[in-house]
Amino acid sequence: MANYTPQPSDKFTFGLWTVGNLGRDPFGEATRVRLEPTYIVEKLAELGAYGVSLHDNDLVPLEASPNERDRIVREFKKTLEQTGLKVTMATTNLFTDPVFKDGAFTSADARVRAFALQKTMRAMDLGAELGAQIYVFWGGREGSEVDFSGKLLDALSWFRDSLNFLAEYSDSQGYGYRFALEPKPNEPRGDLFLPVVGAALGFIATLDKPERFGLNPEFAHETMAGLSFPHAIAQAIDAGKLFHIDLNDQKMSRFDQDLRFGAENLKAAFMLVKLLEDSGYDGPRHFDAHALRTEDEAGVWEFAKGCMRTYLILKEKAQRFDQDSEIQAALKAYRVEDAELEALSKGFSKEKAEALKARGFDLDALRKRGPGLERLDQLTLELLMGVR
Amino acid sequence: MANYTPQPSDKFTFGLWTVGNLGRDPFGEATRVRLEPTYIVEKLAELGAYGVSLHDNDLVPLEASPNERDRIVREFKKTLEQTGLKVTMATTNLFTDPVFKDGAFTSADARVRAFALQKTMRAMDLGAELGAQIYVFWGGREGSEVDFSGKLLDALSWFRDSLNFLAEYSDSQGYGYRFALEPKPNEPRGDLFLPVVGAALGFIATLDKPERFGLNPEFAHETMAGLSFPHAIAQAIDAGKLFHIDLNDQKMSRFDQDLRFGAENLKAAFMLVKLLEDSGYDGPRHFDAHALRTEDEAGVWEFAKGCMRTYLILKEKAQRFDQDSEIQAALKAYRVEDAELEALSKGFSKEKAEALKARGFDLDALRKRGPGLERLDQLTLELLMGVR
Amino acid sequence: MANYTPQPSDKFTFGLWTVGNLGRDPFGEATRVRLEPTYIVEKLAELGAYGVSLHDNDLVPLEASPNERDRIVREFKKTLEQTGLKVTMATTNLFTDPVFKDGAFTSADARVRAFALQKTMRAMDLGAELGAQIYVFWGGREGSEVDFSGKLLDALSWFRDSLNFLAEYSDSQGYGYRFALEPKPNEPRGDLFLPVVGAALGFIATLDKPERFGLNPEFAHETMAGLSFPHAIAQAIDAGKLFHIDLNDQKMSRFDQDLRFGAENLKAAFMLVKLLEDSGYDGPRHFDAHALRTEDEAGVWEFAKGCMRTYLILKEKAQRFDQDSEIQAALKAYRVEDAELEALSKGFSKEKAEALKARGFDLDALRKRGPGLERLDQLTLELLMGVR
Amino acid sequence: MANYTPQPSDKFTFGLWTVGNLGRDPFGEATRVRLEPTYIVEKLAELGAYGVSLHDNDLVPLEASPNERDRIVREFKKTLEQTGLKVTMATTNLFTDPVFKDGAFTSADARVRAFALQKTMRAMDLGAELGAQIYVFWGGREGSEVDFSGKLLDALSWFRDSLNFLAEYSDSQGYGYRFALEPKPNEPRGDLFLPVVGAALGFIATLDKPERFGLNPEFAHETMAGLSFPHAIAQAIDAGKLFHIDLNDQKMSRFDQDLRFGAENLKAAFMLVKLLEDSGYDGPRHFDAHALRTEDEAGVWEFAKGCMRTYLILKEKAQRFDQDSEIQAALKAYRVEDAELEALSKGFSKEKAEALKARGFDLDALRKRGPGLERLDQLTLELLMGVR
Repeated sequence: MANYTPQPSDKFTFGLWTVGNLGRDPFGEATRVRLEPTYIVEKLAELGAYGVSLHDNDLVPLEASPNERDRIVREFKKTLEQTGLKVTMATTNLFTDPVFKDGAFTSADARVRAFALQKTMRAMDLGAELGAQIYVFWGGREGSEVDFSGKLLDALSWFRDSLNFLAEYSDSQGYGYRFALEPKPNEPRGDLFLPVVGAALGFIATLDKPERFGLNPEFAHETMAGLSFPHAIAQAIDAGKLFHIDLNDQKMSRFDQDLRFGAENLKAAFMLVKLLEDSGYDGPRHFDAHALRTEDEAGVWEFAKGCMRTYLILKEKAQRFDQDSEIQAALKAYRVEDAELEALSKGFSKEKAEALKARGFDLDALRKRGPGLERLDQLTLELLMGVR
Repeated sequence: MANYTPQPSDKFTFGLWTVGNLGRDPFGEATRVRLEPTYIVEKLAELGAYGVSLHDNDLVPLEASPNERDRIVREFKKTLEQTGLKVTMATTNLFTDPVFKDGAFTSADARVRAFALQKTMRAMDLGAELGAQIYVFWGGREGSEVDFSGKLLDALSWFRDSLNFLAEYSDSQGYGYRFALEPKPNEPRGDLFLPVVGAALGFIATLDKPERFGLNPEFAHETMAGLSFPHAIAQAIDAGKLFHIDLNDQKMSRFDQDLRFGAENLKAAFMLVKLLEDSGYDGPRHFDAHALRTEDEAGVWEFAKGCMRTYLILKEKAQRFDQDSEIQAALKAYRVEDAELEALSKGFSKEKAEALKARGFDLDALRKRGPGLERLDQLTLELLMGVR
Repeated sequence: MANYTPQPSDKFTFGLWTVGNLGRDPFGEATRVRLEPTYIVEKLAELGAYGVSLHDNDLVPLEASPNERDRIVREFKKTLEQTGLKVTMATTNLFTDPVFKDGAFTSADARVRAFALQKTMRAMDLGAELGAQIYVFWGGREGSEVDFSGKLLDALSWFRDSLNFLAEYSDSQGYGYRFALEPKPNEPRGDLFLPVVGAALGFIATLDKPERFGLNPEFAHETMAGLSFPHAIAQAIDAGKLFHIDLNDQKMSRFDQDLRFGAENLKAAFMLVKLLEDSGYDGPRHFDAHALRTEDEAGVWEFAKGCMRTYLILKEKAQRFDQDSEIQAALKAYRVEDAELEALSKGFSKEKAEALKARGFDLDALRKRGPGLERLDQLTLELLMGVR
Repeated sequence: MANYTPQPSDKFTFGLWTVGNLGRDPFGEATRVRLEPTYIVEKLAELGAYGVSLHDNDLVPLEASPNERDRIVREFKKTLEQTGLKVTMATTNLFTDPVFKDGAFTSADARVRAFALQKTMRAMDLGAELGAQIYVFWGGREGSEVDFSGKLLDALSWFRDSLNFLAEYSDSQGYGYRFALEPKPNEPRGDLFLPVVGAALGFIATLDKPERFGLNPEFAHETMAGLSFPHAIAQAIDAGKLFHIDLNDQKMSRFDQDLRFGAENLKAAFMLVKLLEDSGYDGPRHFDAHALRTEDEAGVWEFAKGCMRTYLILKEKAQRFDQDSEIQAALKAYRVEDAELEALSKGFSKEKAEALKARGFDLDALRKRGPGLERLDQLTLELLMGVR
């Protein structure tokens, strides 16, 4: 058996809030105590991680004085240096404080929108100071329950104005951030704006500088909408917009579970790893999950190790998939190429259109062809189960 | 009480396949007999509809000879003239014939892809001959169950190539079509490509001539993904991409039900009608639904009348909403404007950013403000129930 | 228009935790401050409610000394007397404290199971002291995420042992409680035991004294599983097991939303009210919902009023439904009776079976009959919208 | 690696309709041709199956004359003898013919209800003649879309009357059937009666002879309702009601997919196999699934082989789980036993209740204990992936 011990070169990263999660939920109080950010960094370094990500308030409390802020940042940077861990991504907490209860960039209150902009600029300053190159926008409260409030269209405009403003801020400060939008369909709001990967891709096309913006898709969020995460990632890759990724797991069409990577949809996790590795994605493999609320601190580190081990196991299986001659033969047999027809079908000309319209097809043969997909899928499953 | 009798000026349209639905499902045989397209047109004219839409094979069978085709089209056009009904939208059936069992534009078989292109060009010819100005793409079989077949990225490329080709074909023929993509998350395939409104918006941004392409969102399809249809429509309107719309209904996260408009999610239907009417959408109000399989032909026409009546009732309620002084006061109280902050927040400059970052906010006041949304929602509900 | 002002005779009740909800969620801190139970009782009395329900710790903190407990109870009872409100239902909080993080009656730790029993007996004492006659079991933490822990079968045994024990305790104390199980499919646990109404009905059949146990179905919980709440209530009524009911609302296949009654699935709410009123259900109409997190205290009382008003509006519509001659004619036409066949089909005898097997049927006529359901549904919808 | 070749002693069975599925769906025509039942039996025998199951009309067409029926049955029995395959389960098709469009036992038309009874008695005769000992009731059309038709309560009564009648018929004929109810939440009807395993368990408790009735739970059906199939099976086992089982797979909260066993929810499939093997279930392992519509006949047999292989692979893994010392140690550590408290908590007496109420607990210790579930789950996952 291979050794599935993570190395920094694997680029595994964790949010401070993930291993730091307290286990509080809507029906129960915290089951774990707060871990210091510096302690988290040290532990993750021991486990072989590459870096961490953070919301502004994961590190610096909202009420911290400038002096306190500077002290906290200084100590955190020292630990980063000592451990070699990077801050790979930064983001803003625009959802915990009651001030954002009806949205941040999409609040109906102009003062809240302005405060959200202020808070984000300051958080971008912090991220830049820590070396982050990716900046994530998860609109945790950007949504609604009462659509008759009449702000559905305004909300999209306000959101766009804010993103355009912040892209300019990044440029003017020389931060060079790549912005990654993180979609989610619902929870904590009844319906969130930009609910899925596609919606964020569509929204980016309406921004002033679409090239600055990409996606931070999350496995659990797309799955909450009953959509295929591998399909969503394929579309993000196709559009050149996969800037970052949140790995975790989730049962379909449920509350947000943030399970350990691979814990629920193992086959989809395998497909995802294969897509990431095949596409040459070289960003962080970021785990945005948390240990079950039942667990103590020892369970938290088992959780973190499990996330990374499962990724490495699946990565090795993806390599075996490429080397499995029966599987490769099935893949080849699945496709039918036809150079002439492909030439006619691509790159329009009147002549091609005429030729194509006049063409005869043996429809009956096409109807009868068996693509061999049941067999291919079974071979894949057996490889995943380690019996081939 | 108002008279809710539909008029052609209401622009209600029906697909031939909707009132013509035979009531066949995966577990049972047809419960109704086929209705002739000309008969359907006559009946819909009697009921006050504005037009019809069709797939190529709703009118002309796949195996029809050129002569048969021409005779069928001639007679159909005569009925259109006699009744005054328009063909407002045309589309291609790329899903019924087994040749498309693994996709049409995204089949792994190059011959099937070429045949899909041929069939679509011919169907575009037919639509143009009948006066259709909107051409819909619903990729009924564009999807997969076995993602390890390895075509997720190729499929998007093939799909794009086809759409680019067909946009050129429309231009070269002078058809002037506006193309409308119709997303659906799943069924009949395990996962369909371009599953929701956002995904189609994102995909359009990658096409050669994005301005030719917009959306044909369907109430039931977005609802199958557990997403809010009014939110999706707001995003389509915001992007200037609402070219056509499919009205029906559906329980969330279920098989495709195609229920009578308003039959299930009455409040969302009301919000939708309000959005359409307020936004100045002037395209067809197209019903893509069918009578319950239990019904006979009389039930089919009750179904069709019900779709239109419910729309008109909700449209009148939308007008009352705008005239209800208590509701309007609640809407006004919901928003807080602040000209100075709004000026600072929009249109970036270094100065604005500095001013905004230095600004003080009375966070406690913002946290405590009650937006009055429960009351607004209750007033809306009572208006919907006709008790105010 | 009728006057929809609630009266105690309407039997509307609220949990202390519902209007007392603080608006905390997994992503944000409380937006409202705690309201004293006595204040809640006074406000609900003003609004026309009949009573309140409570968890032990809604009234008495877990850490209260015996003296504190007695003082709190004494003051609470005084307010009940002054206002005339009843405590109609009591229950145990077995989910907030971390001690229950892996279950209460179904914890794998025998000490936790014993503590849950102790806490419930004490809470039953409290409920009896306050006059409650219905005792609810909602197993908020009775579930699992890791089924390979191997306790699925044991958990059901432990749960049964506890319920059997507590039924005897009630008898031995002379409390005379009717026990009502409250099912929920998931959240906060990955999967909860006894997930839906049917599962609880099935479990009751395995208890020592099934006649003591019935159901407390919740609209939102059944809807989270994508099931029809009216269907579930019909089964509970059919089984004689509808002991109590939790009214609220929810989008299907989502996180637990606890929306204002009628706020989302208006037609199902109407059907539910009709079922309750027609069946002679005379228990509390209990609202287990809370105001949106966006709201301040004023919004909370608007929320409470809205729940009751919507029920009364729908109750009046149910009466109109019964008086609407077109609707009643459609209902009559829907059914085909046949006294001879009905006599043969019910109450087995060999002779009946033989006669039935030999009988001829005009299948073609049966296939063609139209039941008129589209029309009936449209008439109902128009009645609901107040336009007939 | 082990040899995963199925043997009759594994008790794998298939419905005639499963490998015989034609690949028709709501949007497309059949992609495969009909296979003769005798041919299916021969092929399944070659593959190592133990038996087959059937609906009456899978073997004998509805319109067959008595002579035709007898000839078909004779030939089928000959093939059974030659191959050694058993008919392990029989059932009635009460859903394909339009006569059942609004239900069979729950139709509002008394004539349809009587015909359903007749058809079922005849199908029971057929099943008995073929040696079937389990008789399944799947109420494919027992449901509704228009609940205001007012039959929700009547439908349950009619259903009960029919089941009571048929249980007596079985006894009077000496057939000795064990009846197995098969729940499904929706599709083809909007909402089906007895939607999930629990609902059927609850309904059985209301029948005249509950001991005759048990469950035929289907993996995909429970999963369509977003519920855990292993949890449902645990409840059926706990109630002594697991009479038969339908193995297949499905994405949650979707249309009915009937995927190859293990194809989607591999971890749940593993848990299920473990539950079945550990509980001593000795009935058929029945696959109620079908090959993807894309496949030709060769794909159908690959599908059938895959179902059986996956079961055998998971069965072997369940054995390894029991022999894995690290896993077994984790399981042991998960539980805390306490003989004294367990004795106090079970079997009520006044003295036990008093002792338990007076008992002190070290709540803080209980709150802090880590159950080690993340580690246990990861170990299980690695075993499933074949890397331990």
